Amino acid sequence: MSGLPAVDVTGRIARLRGALRDASADALLVTRLPNIRYLTGFTGSAAMVLVTADDGIFVTDGRYREQSAEQLGGAGCELEVAIGLGADDQREHLRRVVARAQVRRLLLEANGVTWAQARDLSDRWFPEVEVIAGDAIVEGLRMVKEPAEIERIRAACHIADDALGSLLGRLGSGVTERQFALDLEVAMRERGADGNSFDPIVASGPNGAKPHARPSDRVVERGELVVIDFGCIVDGYCSDMTRTVSVGEPTPEARHMWEVVHAAQAAGRDAVAAGVEAAAVDRVCRDIIAEAGWAEAFAHGTGHGVGIEIHEDPRVSQASSATLLPGHIVTVEPGVYLPGIGGVRLEDTVAVTEGGCDPLTAFPKHLVV
Amino acid sequence: MSGLPAVDVTGRIARLRGALRDASADALLVTRLPNIRYLTGFTGSAAMVLVTADDGIFVTDGRYREQSAEQLGGAGCELEVAIGLGADDQREHLRRVVARAQVRRLLLEANGVTWAQARDLSDRWFPEVEVIAGDAIVEGLRMVKEPAEIERIRAACHIADDALGSLLGRLGSGVTERQFALDLEVAMRERGADGNSFDPIVASGPNGAKPHARPSDRVVERGELVVIDFGCIVDGYCSDMTRTVSVGEPTPEARHMWEVVHAAQAAGRDAVAAGVEAAAVDRVCRDIIAEAGWAEAFAHGTGHGVGIEIHEDPRVSQASSATLLPGHIVTVEPGVYLPGIGGVRLEDTVAVTEGGCDPLTAFPKHLVV
Repeated sequence: MSGLPAVDVTGRIARLRGALRDASADALLVTRLPNIRYLTGFTGSAAMVLVTADDGIFVTDGRYREQSAEQLGGAGCELEVAIGLGADDQREHLRRVVARAQVRRLLLEANGVTWAQARDLSDRWFPEVEVIAGDAIVEGLRMVKEPAEIERIRAACHIADDALGSLLGRLGSGVTERQFALDLEVAMRERGADGNSFDPIVASGPNGAKPHARPSDRVVERGELVVIDFGCIVDGYCSDMTRTVSVGEPTPEARHMWEVVHAAQAAGRDAVAAGVEAAAVDRVCRDIIAEAGWAEAFAHGTGHGVGIEIHEDPRVSQASSATLLPGHIVTVEPGVYLPGIGGVRLEDTVAVTEGGCDPLTAFPKHLVV
Repeated sequence: MSGLPAVDVTGRIARLRGALRDASADALLVTRLPNIRYLTGFTGSAAMVLVTADDGIFVTDGRYREQSAEQLGGAGCELEVAIGLGADDQREHLRRVVARAQVRRLLLEANGVTWAQARDLSDRWFPEVEVIAGDAIVEGLRMVKEPAEIERIRAACHIADDALGSLLGRLGSGVTERQFALDLEVAMRERGADGNSFDPIVASGPNGAKPHARPSDRVVERGELVVIDFGCIVDGYCSDMTRTVSVGEPTPEARHMWEVVHAAQAAGRDAVAAGVEAAAVDRVCRDIIAEAGWAEAFAHGTGHGVGIEIHEDPRVSQASSATLLPGHIVTVEPGVYLPGIGGVRLEDTVAVTEGGCDPLTAFPKHLVV
C-alpha cells in the first residue's frame, strides 16, 4: 500500500519508559509478538525485547539475522540488536543488559508469558532480580492509535468494503459459503491486503445461528439471511466488518430480526464518543435487543478494540471497565442468533473522536441485495 | 475432503486419564485450543476442558452453544457440555465439577496458560485445591499420530504437491513473489484445503537469504533461486514442504548450495527411523553443511513435529531430547542462507516408521525447472 504516512516507532519506547517509571519498575521484558512489532517494527515469529530506563536490547534467533537488522534499522529503532542461536545464548544477551543497566525490579508480561516461561525466567534466567507480573503495559500504550495507525486500519477497511461490493452479486447464483469466503479473501489480497485479519465467516440460513460458524459447502439460497464477517490486514493493521443480507425478500421474521439488530447497531454506534464508558455502549445495544425479547439470543459482547491484533483492548462489553478515548478503535457488532432459524449481526469498525466516532467501515447496510 | 477415515476422539480422554494417573494428579484443566480440539473435536476459539479420573466438563461461551453441542456430540465425546456466559459463570461450572470429583491436585497446562491466568486460577478460581504446573501432557499424547491423523496430514501434503505442480510453470514469466504465494493458497483451497498451515514463503534471489522472508512485490527472475515453503490444513491437520528451484540454469555457486542442501536433506531423511534420537537426525544434516563450510549459514533446527499445529513436538534440533517413535510426523528441512546472495532450503514432512520413514510430501526435488 503506497501513500500511507510513515509510522513513528521510535517514540513508542520513550512512552513505554514513562509507563515503567509510573510502575516503579526498572525494566520490562517484552515477549508478546504484537507488542514487539509495535515497539520495534519487527514482524518475525520469535524475539524478545528488554527495555530499561535508558538501555535495552532486541534478541532474536539466527533465522532473523538479516530481517531484524533491516526492520529495526528501517524503523529507526535504537535498541541493540543481538542474535542468540539458542536459548542459552539469548539468555546471556539479556542477562548482560540486565547487569549493565542494574535492573532490580523486572516486569514480565503476565498476559503474554506462559506460566512455564514465567517460572523459567524467574528461577533460571534472572534469579538475582525481582521478577514481577506486569499487566498489559504495552497493550495500554497501543489502545490509543496514532494517525498513521488509523490510516492503516482505514485502508484495510476500505479494501474490505470494496471487495465485498465486487462480490455481493454472486450470492444467490449457486455459490457456496466456502467459495464466497475464498473469493472475498482473494479480492482483498488483489486490492493490496497482506492477508485476512481472521478466517472469514460466511454463514447462511440456519448456519447463521452460530456466531462463529465456519464456511461450509452449503449453497447460499435466495430469500435467506447470510452473515458475512471478515477483514484484512494492511501493513500490520486489521479491519473487521459484518454485514447480513438476503438475496431477495426474506421471511417477515428474518426482516424483523434484521431491523432490531440494525437499530441496536446504529444506536450503539451513535453512543460511541470520547468519555463514554465502553459498558454503556454495550448496554445501549443490549437494551434494544432485550426489548425485542431476544436478550438471551445476543450471547456475546458488543465489540472490541482493533489494531495490530484483531481483538485487543478496549473491550466493549458488560464487564468492560474501559472509558473510550479519542484514538481508540473499536467494533460495534450486536447480533441475534436463533437456533434452527438463523442469525443477524451488523458490525462497523469505528475510530473514537471527541464528539462521536469516525466510521472506518462504510459498506452500506441493506437487508435485501 | 471425503474418503478420510473417521478420527476416534473418544479414546483420547481415556489415554489422558492414564497420563494423569502417572502424574499422580486428580485432574487436568486443558486451556490450549489445539489440545481441546484433540480431546473433543471442538474447533472454536474459546473453551476450557476439565478432565478428572472419571468425570469432566467442557465449558465454552454463548457464541458456541450450537457448535459445541454439534461437534462434541458428533465426535462421541461424553463430557458434560456447559455454556458460561461470562468468566464467573464459567468458573462456577468448573468449580462444581472440581467439588463433585473431589479434586485435590489439579494440573494446569504450564505451557498454555499465561502467568496471569495461572495466578487467577490458583488464587481465585480454585483456592481450595493444590494447583500444579503440568508439562505438555496432551502434547505428549498428540506426538504419536493415529492412522486417521496420518491420513489427514497425507491428504494435506498431496494437495500441496498438486498445487505446486499446477503453478511452477508460472515462475519466470513475470510473476511476483506475492502473486505466486496467493496463487498457491488459492490452488490449495480449490483442491479442498481449509486454509494455509502458515503464510507461504516465496523468497527469490537475495530474499532467499532470509529463512522466514515474507512474499514481496519482487518479480521472480529466470536463473535465480526461489525458496517456496508452504502448506495447508485438511480437517484440522497441517502439511509443510519447501522446495528451492531455479527457472533455467542458476549460477555455479547457487547450484553448489543446492547440491549441498540436497545431500543434507536426503541424508537427514534417510536417518529418520523409530528409535533414532531427533538430535542425531539434526547432526547428520548439520555435518554435511558444515563440511561444505556453511555451518554458520544453517542457523535453525532441522525440523519439527507436524499435526494439529504446524510446529509441535518432537523437535528435530541439536537441543532436542526426543527419540523418534513410529507415528511421529516430523519435517526434515536443512538450509543454507548467504546474505546478499540467496538461500536454499529443502523440506519434506515424513511419518516415522519402524525401519525408516514414509515421506508424505512427494513433490520432486529438481533444481532447474
